[in-house]
Amino acid sequence: MVIMAASTAAPAFQAVLERIADEIGRTPGRGRPAGYIPALAACDPRSFGMAVAEPDGTVYGVGDWREPFSTQSVTKVFTLALDLAREGDALWEHVGREPSGNPFNSLVQLEYENGIPRNPFINAGALVVTDRLQTRTGDAAGELLAFLRAESGNPSLDFDLDVAASETAHGDRNAALAHFMAAYGNIDNPVPALLDQYFRQCSVRASCADLALATGFLARHGLRADGTRLLTRSQAKQVNAVMLTCGTYDAAGEFAHRVGLPGKSGVGGGIIAVVPGRCTLCVWSPGLDERGNSVAGVAALDLFTTMTGLSVF
Amino acid sequence: MVIMAASTAAPAFQAVLERIADEIGRTPGRGRPAGYIPALAACDPRSFGMAVAEPDGTVYGVGDWREPFSTQSVTKVFTLALDLAREGDALWEHVGREPSGNPFNSLVQLEYENGIPRNPFINAGALVVTDRLQTRTGDAAGELLAFLRAESGNPSLDFDLDVAASETAHGDRNAALAHFMAAYGNIDNPVPALLDQYFRQCSVRASCADLALATGFLARHGLRADGTRLLTRSQAKQVNAVMLTCGTYDAAGEFAHRVGLPGKSGVGGGIIAVVPGRCTLCVWSPGLDERGNSVAGVAALDLFTTMTGLSVF
Amino acid sequence: MVIMAASTAAPAFQAVLERIADEIGRTPGRGRPAGYIPALAACDPRSFGMAVAEPDGTVYGVGDWREPFSTQSVTKVFTLALDLAREGDALWEHVGREPSGNPFNSLVQLEYENGIPRNPFINAGALVVTDRLQTRTGDAAGELLAFLRAESGNPSLDFDLDVAASETAHGDRNAALAHFMAAYGNIDNPVPALLDQYFRQCSVRASCADLALATGFLARHGLRADGTRLLTRSQAKQVNAVMLTCGTYDAAGEFAHRVGLPGKSGVGGGIIAVVPGRCTLCVWSPGLDERGNSVAGVAALDLFTTMTGLSVF
Amino acid sequence: MVIMAASTAAPAFQAVLERIADEIGRTPGRGRPAGYIPALAACDPRSFGMAVAEPDGTVYGVGDWREPFSTQSVTKVFTLALDLAREGDALWEHVGREPSGNPFNSLVQLEYENGIPRNPFINAGALVVTDRLQTRTGDAAGELLAFLRAESGNPSLDFDLDVAASETAHGDRNAALAHFMAAYGNIDNPVPALLDQYFRQCSVRASCADLALATGFLARHGLRADGTRLLTRSQAKQVNAVMLTCGTYDAAGEFAHRVGLPGKSGVGGGIIAVVPGRCTLCVWSPGLDERGNSVAGVAALDLFTTMTGLSVF
Repeated sequence: MVIMAASTAAPAFQAVLERIADEIGRTPGRGRPAGYIPALAACDPRSFGMAVAEPDGTVYGVGDWREPFSTQSVTKVFTLALDLAREGDALWEHVGREPSGNPFNSLVQLEYENGIPRNPFINAGALVVTDRLQTRTGDAAGELLAFLRAESGNPSLDFDLDVAASETAHGDRNAALAHFMAAYGNIDNPVPALLDQYFRQCSVRASCADLALATGFLARHGLRADGTRLLTRSQAKQVNAVMLTCGTYDAAGEFAHRVGLPGKSGVGGGIIAVVPGRCTLCVWSPGLDERGNSVAGVAALDLFTTMTGLSVF
Repeated sequence: MVIMAASTAAPAFQAVLERIADEIGRTPGRGRPAGYIPALAACDPRSFGMAVAEPDGTVYGVGDWREPFSTQSVTKVFTLALDLAREGDALWEHVGREPSGNPFNSLVQLEYENGIPRNPFINAGALVVTDRLQTRTGDAAGELLAFLRAESGNPSLDFDLDVAASETAHGDRNAALAHFMAAYGNIDNPVPALLDQYFRQCSVRASCADLALATGFLARHGLRADGTRLLTRSQAKQVNAVMLTCGTYDAAGEFAHRVGLPGKSGVGGGIIAVVPGRCTLCVWSPGLDERGNSVAGVAALDLFTTMTGLSVF
Repeated sequence: MVIMAASTAAPAFQAVLERIADEIGRTPGRGRPAGYIPALAACDPRSFGMAVAEPDGTVYGVGDWREPFSTQSVTKVFTLALDLAREGDALWEHVGREPSGNPFNSLVQLEYENGIPRNPFINAGALVVTDRLQTRTGDAAGELLAFLRAESGNPSLDFDLDVAASETAHGDRNAALAHFMAAYGNIDNPVPALLDQYFRQCSVRASCADLALATGFLARHGLRADGTRLLTRSQAKQVNAVMLTCGTYDAAGEFAHRVGLPGKSGVGGGIIAVVPGRCTLCVWSPGLDERGNSVAGVAALDLFTTMTGLSVF
Repeated sequence: MVIMAASTAAPAFQAVLERIADEIGRTPGRGRPAGYIPALAACDPRSFGMAVAEPDGTVYGVGDWREPFSTQSVTKVFTLALDLAREGDALWEHVGREPSGNPFNSLVQLEYENGIPRNPFINAGALVVTDRLQTRTGDAAGELLAFLRAESGNPSLDFDLDVAASETAHGDRNAALAHFMAAYGNIDNPVPALLDQYFRQCSVRASCADLALATGFLARHGLRADGTRLLTRSQAKQVNAVMLTCGTYDAAGEFAHRVGLPGKSGVGGGIIAVVPGRCTLCVWSPGLDERGNSVAGVAALDLFTTMTGLSVF
């Protein structure tokens, strides 16, 4: 892995990032940080960082690209990959791969479909994936953290236990989802233990640089940073497809439309994205739109694909 | 435009098509033709054709690739493009761009969202697009037919008025959708006139060769066969994005997963697909799966992307 | 039938009615007339009339009790009785008897339940009843009018064809319901012909005196004014039960709570109610609450049961 | 209170009960006991008992009328009355009074209506009532037990802690409901503590004689057996109205239709019913129909109202 300082980066990506940051910096109105957890609400909405990682580990960045932030739902991509690597297609009997067509924590569709969540990125689906990874490893959150540390090359990555505790205290809706699926036999672990794993996993703090690097296996068709295989080529394609169709809550269609890349957002304001075979990206800015996606983050990715022509379409 | 006979085609695509046809030919179990219209139910489920068109108009084909079939919902892509070319982004105030998360003619979501359909490929959304094109042209179905004839270079393409009459006789569900949206002010034309346009448009008969060529503007980033511009580059990307996220009814996620290309299916058994910048495809086989997509068609596209590596992911 | 002038009525009911009118007259804030039809919107919200009919045809009244108004959904009770008298329990295979738990013209529940409406008083259910009566009589609206004239002893009762035409012009939602049920095979007649019957039936103008008398068969356990039997005792009980559980749109529970009588309201501001074995009532005041029930009408019935103790509970 | 042996009872009610038992005894096909709890599944489906209590405490009975059974949801009536007696109309801001129009533990409607259950007899609504009674008394289940013992004159009534433990072990769906409403701020107590109260309350074992007597306050317009007032006359009417419109899960309309009395059923096979001012009833037979109501119980109540003419309609 070669991390390059922003000032000495190769012209192409670095120049693009600087133009994006410049453009974003001149745009007012960036939405509002998530308000339901004090640690998120306290973020400065003017923060903005963006990083691009090439498959060989070269990283380019701009703005607050080395500042750790709360990854939240961005981690759902990694947990999905870690479980898929272990159990393969059997996972898809417990969680679907279709867009939900509903706000991200709706119970309605779950009831229609007998406790099988539509996809692994709505909260219900992510709970199922964590539950299964927990059953297979005994420590889902620990597996995730070890993976992120290894892929980013940053051993200081860690949980934010204050955030996890805060989420637990406001966790009634996720508890309802988990108990509801348990009633259908689609959750194996005791609900309180599952929620503990789930909220710790969401609490990981990492920077744009860390996450762009950790996402690299999706640009490398399944290979980890050290060249070993995490996912088959087909599985890597599956994860990219789910990100494109389901990665940004109820705005996946608009995201595909504007950005045209597989992506996954979190309420901490981070978004990761993949240009298969070419590079991975992470952008962060805490102000969210009404559907829970970073306003400046989506705008920055839109600019990136417009400037580089690197959309999948 | 250069149409090449199957036997003299350039090796790459032609060889791939022949291997696919061979593989499909050895696979039993191809689903059942749509049963609600006699003309569709009478199709031979063993029919199979596939064509690939390059941006310059070169076409490769295999099997029943020159046999006309009932295009049905495949035409929704062209109607969308024709209206988008005329009214631009204003269209998106009347129809969304998000996957529906529900079977293709559900009324539930339409009611939640005040008569604005989720996307232009569910029936409700296609009715809105046809209604708007009708208002702008006075003959939506005629515009579509003229476009398909010009792009395919086949002046014999035509409506199948028996099929259109048969659909009208079973049209209560679409009539319900249209009246329902009219109650919300989202339909301009009288419902019977709109349904007449809509069912005629769905009744067009065309072959795999015709449709692969007619879809070419999406591989050419918006340019028609004669080099004039139909859509802006950004609009062409929009159409591709909607096809990827919403083009195959309630199986868009699985299609993205297996095939990984923008595509649009119809209950006549046809599917069109796009490799942006590289080629367009059309496959046809009348046997459908339970979600209304051609069983052999999806399998053939899956083989195509596996053999060529041409997925967008 | 003995119609008594208000001034010479027997003391009990007459005195109660006068106290009620006095109380209502001193209450400000009576809601707003239905706005979607000009003829309804033009009503004076201060209008108020109330009538009580004894099983022998004696009528007491107060205020605008002899003023004709637009009966609207109040007529659904009579159409139900006329069809039930003809086909008996077979009707209940085409329409349910359960409260809808949703606003009165929702499509959602209809879709869940395969085109069988929850009860005969939501619009979908009333369309089914009218459709069936039309099939059996060839003139559903004419049958209704003849019945109302005979039971009220008022041969001048008639349709208001301006109101019917106005409803037809705004009839997209009912057209959607009818086509939707036709798609499930639960409508026999052509939709435009059915809607014509339906809207004419809703357009009948009648007074509180007329309707209190016409409802008499429900207090007489199924006997018409002339002593002939319309419904069996059990069927009369069925109609009363449906009125109590489903007669006031999404407020049936609250109506049972406050009033405690079988009742049926209409957006013209009328409400009919039954004290089985004792009397029938009709109250009219055009101002509606947000759920479509007459504000002063519900208040007057509440006062009536409180003053007389005549609730069924 | 005067409990009369079956053999010496006054002729009217006693004779009716004996004719009903005779009729029921000759009817095959009585449904199946609830299967989700071993203690319920083990019941003999041929068990049948029925009791009628007059307002003065005279009780008539037939069959297994003195056999204790698992009261389950029948207790929701008493918990509602106990809380309504304490907080009055303020309760109705936290739970509605409208039929649910959905199976008894659906989450869909709860989500539409922001965590306010439709009525106090669906599980969500009963959880809210228990939560509020718990807040006011510190021991909701204990209050209920004391009330039932006092009104029935049977100090041996008690919880069945095995049944309560069994329900807790299968309590994921109720846990989901409680957490879901807690997320909307409509639950005050910790969910595990609330569920403990709720399941103990449902586990009370009582006989037809006990429950017919304990329901007496609803026939006495709010007065307890000792003549003290539990509910105002208006509140007693409210409880009867909610029983009639919402007391038998998704079959309230059909129950009103066939029986025509305020009633409340439980999955233990018991049903209580009220003839305001005249008597209260309890019938028990463990075989249930598909909607969770006792097959023989509903049939027996239907016979009762047919034989006595005591329907409210």
